[in-house]
Order: sequence, then structure tokens, then C-alpha cells
Amino acid sequence: MSDRLRPPSVSTLAVSAAELLSALREAPPLTHCITNSVVTGFTANALLAVGAAPAMVDIVGESGMFAGVASGLLVNLGTPTPEQRAAMREAVASAGVEETPWVLDPVAIGVLPVRTALARELLESGPTAVRGNASEILALAGESGGGRGTDATDTTDAAAETAIALARRSGSVIAVSGPVDLLTDGERVLRIANGTELLTRVTGGGCALGALMAAFLGAAWATDEDALTATAAASLVYTVAAERAARESSGPGSFAVALLDALAAVTPDDVVAEARVEEVAL
Amino acid sequence: MSDRLRPPSVSTLAVSAAELLSALREAPPLTHCITNSVVTGFTANALLAVGAAPAMVDIVGESGMFAGVASGLLVNLGTPTPEQRAAMREAVASAGVEETPWVLDPVAIGVLPVRTALARELLESGPTAVRGNASEILALAGESGGGRGTDATDTTDAAAETAIALARRSGSVIAVSGPVDLLTDGERVLRIANGTELLTRVTGGGCALGALMAAFLGAAWATDEDALTATAAASLVYTVAAERAARESSGPGSFAVALLDALAAVTPDDVVAEARVEEVAL
Amino acid sequence: MSDRLRPPSVSTLAVSAAELLSALREAPPLTHCITNSVVTGFTANALLAVGAAPAMVDIVGESGMFAGVASGLLVNLGTPTPEQRAAMREAVASAGVEETPWVLDPVAIGVLPVRTALARELLESGPTAVRGNASEILALAGESGGGRGTDATDTTDAAAETAIALARRSGSVIAVSGPVDLLTDGERVLRIANGTELLTRVTGGGCALGALMAAFLGAAWATDEDALTATAAASLVYTVAAERAARESSGPGSFAVALLDALAAVTPDDVVAEARVEEVAL
Repeated sequence: MSDRLRPPSVSTLAVSAAELLSALREAPPLTHCITNSVVTGFTANALLAVGAAPAMVDIVGESGMFAGVASGLLVNLGTPTPEQRAAMREAVASAGVEETPWVLDPVAIGVLPVRTALARELLESGPTAVRGNASEILALAGESGGGRGTDATDTTDAAAETAIALARRSGSVIAVSGPVDLLTDGERVLRIANGTELLTRVTGGGCALGALMAAFLGAAWATDEDALTATAAASLVYTVAAERAARESSGPGSFAVALLDALAAVTPDDVVAEARVEEVAL
Repeated sequence: MSDRLRPPSVSTLAVSAAELLSALREAPPLTHCITNSVVTGFTANALLAVGAAPAMVDIVGESGMFAGVASGLLVNLGTPTPEQRAAMREAVASAGVEETPWVLDPVAIGVLPVRTALARELLESGPTAVRGNASEILALAGESGGGRGTDATDTTDAAAETAIALARRSGSVIAVSGPVDLLTDGERVLRIANGTELLTRVTGGGCALGALMAAFLGAAWATDEDALTATAAASLVYTVAAERAARESSGPGSFAVALLDALAAVTPDDVVAEARVEEVAL
Repeated sequence: MSDRLRPPSVSTLAVSAAELLSALREAPPLTHCITNSVVTGFTANALLAVGAAPAMVDIVGESGMFAGVASGLLVNLGTPTPEQRAAMREAVASAGVEETPWVLDPVAIGVLPVRTALARELLESGPTAVRGNASEILALAGESGGGRGTDATDTTDAAAETAIALARRSGSVIAVSGPVDLLTDGERVLRIANGTELLTRVTGGGCALGALMAAFLGAAWATDEDALTATAAASLVYTVAAERAARESSGPGSFAVALLDALAAVTPDDVVAEARVEEVAL
């Protein structure tokens, strides 16, 4: 794999991200989240800030029908109680029937058995995208014992070949979060260099990105964009906002607050001007 | 319904709100919340900030006895797991026996079947007050399919006649949140024009108001105020604080922080000076 | 019990606290939390801010194995659903076998029957430390009906003799939180005077301290420090940071944000310079 930059497609990508951000704000996608109890408030606030319409519907008897009417769905395995596990299966089945795009976030899989089995089961249902750190993606592919809780113990580049193979096998976009994010649909590979180390000092820093991917997929389905562009747009908007927030912050507490302000304030033009994305030739 | 203002009763109302705020701070009402997992932390912080004593007791075997000793109870249907549904029934039964005032917040009812049935069931137990957006109130009255998740798709004024009829039928104060809040006990109708659009950009912006209503009802029961005055007082204190917070904010993240600061800092005199409330003649 | 200060051991203690803070940041202890739904996000953020590695694993089938690999465990009884109660028992059993240090935080026991029985049951499994307010510690010892929800209605000094007796009987460090914190292992008694009233205006202000104690116990086990020193170190770092945050705050909302910033910024030297700890002769 060479690192040759392909400027035209890349500048196209930042422009597409900006256009998706505009489209999302004009017609806020109803974003259905089944997510963990640690980050549910922060996730909803991140979605509201960027301009989406969050709905945290995670009980049996409601999640299935709701996934059918939502524009996008997030399934995050951070605290998978039995009730949530059943609600996730119900939602994923409905998303399949109704063609709602959905994101799987396999939080802390590898060492933890219940969620690891669940992640592999849900992968068989064909998520539109999977977002995780390198250790989680390796564990999902069956190639690693996983990280230490939510900390990645593997680097993004170490997971690149696994991510590409997993994308080809699953048909999902695989998004590997790290100091540089790597996204692939098995045919194209993007590297996004925006971001800040402070995102790892705030709980839900990664989980909120998974939710934004579900929202941007909703906006993309409404405007005929593809899944790789949508997930890259979510990553670009999120990490450009995070960089702006980091400049206003004096620590992880004020950063989390500033990130919400920045998600609301960041403009499509900001995204085009500040995106640092490259396409890697396979 | 005319829009004729009745100044005397209205100025009385702002003064009553200010007095209730003082009373609440002198004898913090123990405010029992059974609320959704998205907003539980923000709700507890809003109650602490204004001067109340929150207790988030939502399990079977504890919620019944606790609703009997609490000064006020909030039942919020945002993420109604089976455990919470049973705990809500237990609490509401106990509140009825012990005459604890309680607030029903029928979050996102209408399209979502489990909570819609539960809201209608709980309404039969006679909540002291119901707080919701226009779509939720219409759905509770059986007149609409409800909104899109937590977003209202109907206006407050469109829900006015339904709210009045529902108040008469249920014996509950009905509080319809929106750009202008409408509150009615079936005999009087109040419109509160304070507030800020930023409240809709923070998750739990409405849920926390429901919790404040439970706290102010607790303070009102201790000082022989009526339920309409108590819920109006909660709305006035909350929205006056929100306006002050909005002036200090640079986005939804800093607004949520400033709102907690403002709830702690707002004085009874501020409420009297800044309240924009009118009574609508029926 | 006299109030005679013993300077040498006390200055040793502040130095030990500073050294433990450095050790924790060099080798972040994996801190397993089973905690209540109100504070789980704030708790994880406090652990991340100070430099630990939080993991909120609270389901059956995962909490047992995870408590065995974690460096420290927190069991907080704030919202003990049936699933969490089973996960707590699983984790505590595993912590006993694997010698993982663990903290019991018996939130709001006394008046609430389910958690009161659970706290007494878990106490029999020998927590390394117990953290609570005076009312909770009295209730755990069977000497009081407990407080009003999470508010202490008893003073720290009133609980001192009970705490000492409970420490001797249980073998646990007993940490009584209040305007002055009192910590004892049954042989030594420490009083820590740092802190701010604002900690009682933020939900999870006490719960996060329990989590820090679990993290510092993890760091202590790795460096052969004792449990009393570890829990005192957590209290000192937390309350010194809280004092610094209070000076930057204009209310409870901005205080919670500043506390996270301060936990990340506070240095070992700050702890030595600002600690106000005394040892009380028995």
C-alpha cells in the first residue's frame, strides 16, 4: 500500500462532506440510538449540536418499529444489558427490512465475552458501517484478544489490512478510529488526520462519532451519497470541530463543552478549509 | 379565547413564583425522580442547582416506599425499561395513597407503543401535573399520532383546546412546552413567554423542567399553594434562568453549563422582574 | 480521641499521595466501575481526567471476569437494578479470588430496603474500602435509619466512633465524606480538611471520589502502598482539585466542568503544597 495522495478525489471528498453537513442541517435526520448508559446524554447532545434529531429508543417493543421510521440507527455495545441486547436485535432486523442505514460500534469487544459474541452476531446482519478503535476492529475480525476495556492497544495502521479484508467480507464500511482515522469500504481507503488527543480524555469521544456516522448516513441516503462518503463526512465534521474546541479548552472538562459548541458552530466552509484527508492507493 | 391580559392576577403569579422559590430553598423538597437514562444526570444537577434535593430511585422494591416519603415525584417515560415501568406503577400507587404530588412526562408518546399505553394507564391514576410538548399532549389525549421522537410537530396553541379539555377530564394541570409555554388546570390558562430556543438544543431541556415542577409542587404542598401556581413557578424560574444563561453562552454546550449556574444564581427578585406571563381569558 | 496533630506522619502522607498520583499517571490503573445511571458519565470523565483508565462493565457474564483483570473495582449502589445486583455479586466474588482491591459505595442506604440489604451482604465479602457520608456509614453499621436520599443528616464526627468500630470489624478502610473527610483503618484515623461545599451541589460529587479510591487502590497495589494511604491519596487529590476548581467557577455547572480540568491539571507538587490532613490520636 503506497501513501500517494490523490488530490482531486480528496478535495471532492471534503466538498461532499460540507454538502452533507448542509443537507443534514436542512433536513435533520431522525437518528435512532441504542447506546451505552455512560455516554447517552453526551451522544444526544452531540447529535443535537451538529443539527441532527436524536432519539434514544432502547426497549423491546419499540426499537424495532422505530428503526423502521428512523433515518439512521446506531447500535453501540458499551453496556449491553439483556433488555438492550433484545432491543438491538429487534432494531437491526427492522433496519434490514426497511433499509435504514445503521452503524455498529463494538465497544470494548475482545476480552468481554457477551458483547464479543453479540458483535459477531450483529455483523452477520450487515451493518452499513462499523466504527471502532484498532483493537476492537481486530477483535471483530477474530484476529486479536482485544484491548484493555475501551483503550486501543493496537495502532490504526496495524489494523489496516484487517479492516480492508473485513470490509470486503462484510460489505460494511469499516472505520478505525485513532490518532489518524482510517476508513475503507474494501475498495477505497481514506486516512483522516484531523482530531485531537483530548478526544481520548472524554468518555464518549468515540461513541459520539459513531452516532454522527448514523446521522450522516441518514442524510446521505436522502441525497444519494454513498456510505464511505457519509462516514468520512461524519469523521471530518467531528474532528474539525474537535480541533477548534481544543484550541478553546483548558482541560478535558472544558473541551467536552467546547466540542458541543463547535459542532453547532462549524460551517461547511470550515470543513472544506480544514479537512486533512488523503486517499491511500491500494 | 381572547388574548386579553389580566395584570393583577399575573403580577400575583410572578410574586407567588418568587415566594415558592424562596420556600424551596429554605426547605429543599426531596424530589423523587424516575426518569430516562439520557437525562438523569442533568436532571439531578438542575434540581440541585435550583436548591431542591433530588433522589433518583427507580427500582422495584424501593420506589413505592420512597414516593411515600418524598415531597414530589417525577415519572418520565423517556427510556421505560420493564424494571422502570414496574417501579413507576409502584411509585404512582404510593403517591396516590400518601398524597405526594407527582408529574407525568410522557416523552415521545404517540408513535412509540409501549410508552403510549403506559402514559394513558398512568394518566388514570391522576397525576398532579402532566408536562409535554404539543405533540405529546395531543397524543395523550388520543388526538394525534404524536411527533417525531422528542420533537414536537404541533404548535402549543394548536394544543390549547385539547389541553384544557384534558385538564378538565383528568383533574391534572396540563403544561404544554414550546416557544410559549401554556399551562392550564381547566379553569385558568396561563401563557409564559420566557425561554430560549437553546433549550431545544440540549438533551433534557424539557425533562429537567418536569423535574422542577415536581420539586415546586413539593414546595407548594408545604405552603398551601395550588398546583397551577406551582407548575407556573417552575416554568418561570426555569425559563428566566435559561434566558440569563443564553446571554452567557456561545453554543449548546456552554448553554447547558450556564443554565445550571443560572438556576443556582437566579433570585426571587429576578423572577418577579423578568417574568413574562399572561393569563388568557377562557 | 484528642485532636493532637502528628506532623511527621502527616507530611509523609501528603508525599505518599503525590507519589501515588505520579504512579497512577505513569501506569493508568484499569478501573472497573459498576455504578449508578445518574453519574456514570461524570465518573468515567473524572477517572479519565485524573489519569486512570475507566471501564464501566456492569452486566452479568462480563463483570466477574473483568473484575479479575482490572486493577481496582468500584461497586456503587445508587441505582441497583436486578441486573446490576447480580453483576455486583459476580464482580465481588471474582475480586475476592483475584485479590483485586474494591470499594463499596453504599449510596442512600438506610431508608431504602433493597440497597440496604445488599450493602450489608456485600460488606461481608470484605471490601478494601467503604466510602459514604455519615448517615450511610451509620446505616451500614446498623446504627441509624439513614439520611434523606443522598443527603447526610448526621455529621462526620458523630460517625467517627462507629467508623472506627466498623473498620475493625470489617477489615475495610472506612471513609466518611463530609465538610471534613474522616478515614480510618481501625488503627489510624485521618481527617482531611480540603474540599468545597460545591461538591454537594453536583450530582456524583461523592460517587466520583469512590471511583478515584478504586483507581488509587489499583495504583497502590502496584507500588506496595497500603489501603489507608491509597484512599487518603484519592481524597487529597480530589479535594485539592475541587478547591482549585471552585476558585474558577461561577456556580455548580461551571464547577463540574472546572473540576474535570483541575483533576487533569493538578500536579503532585500541588497536592503536597495544598493538602490539609491531620492524624487524630486514638
